[in-house]
Amino acid sequence: MESSGQPGIKIRFGKAVRRRRRELDISQEELAERSGLHRTYISSVERGERSPTLDSIYQISKALDIKIVELFTLYGIEEQS
Amino acid sequence: MESSGQPGIKIRFGKAVRRRRRELDISQEELAERSGLHRTYISSVERGERSPTLDSIYQISKALDIKIVELFTLYGIEEQS
Repeated sequence: MESSGQPGIKIRFGKAVRRRRRELDISQEELAERSGLHRTYISSVERGERSPTLDSIYQISKALDIKIVELFTLYGIEEQS
Repeated sequence: MESSGQPGIKIRFGKAVRRRRRELDISQEELAERSGLHRTYISSVERGERSPTLDSIYQISKALDIKIVELFTLYGIEEQS
C-alpha cells in the first residue's frame, strides 16, 4: 500500500517535523526520548523515507508541543498536494 | 511502537472517516476503490483497530474529497486528546 501513496506528503511532513524540532532547539535524540519512538525512526521520518502511523504522528506532534492540525497548517504539509 | 500510541485518536479518526463516508453516501467498497486501499483495511481503520499511515490518511482523505486538516478539524479528531 505504501507504493500507492503520495511521496510528497511524507517529504513535507518530514520537513515540518525537522523545522519544528529545530525551532524548539532539540535534537533527534531528545525528540525520540520525548515521543517514545526510536531515534532511527525519527530520522527516517524527517527524511521523508517512512510513512508514519497515526499513532506516531500523534506522539511526534505531542512531543513537539503542537497539535497535528497546527503542524499540518503552519508548515504547509498539504500545500502542494 | 503501536502500543505506546494513544488509543483514542485511532477511534476518533475511524469515526470521522465513517461519518464523512456516510455523508457522501458511499459504501466501504466504494471508498476502498476510490482510495486504492483494501476494503478490509478501510473497515479496520473505521473501527479504530488500525493506525493508518500518513500515506493511507492522505489517500483516504483524498477519496473522501476533504483535506486531512479539514477531516481532523470538522470531526474533532484531536478534541479529547
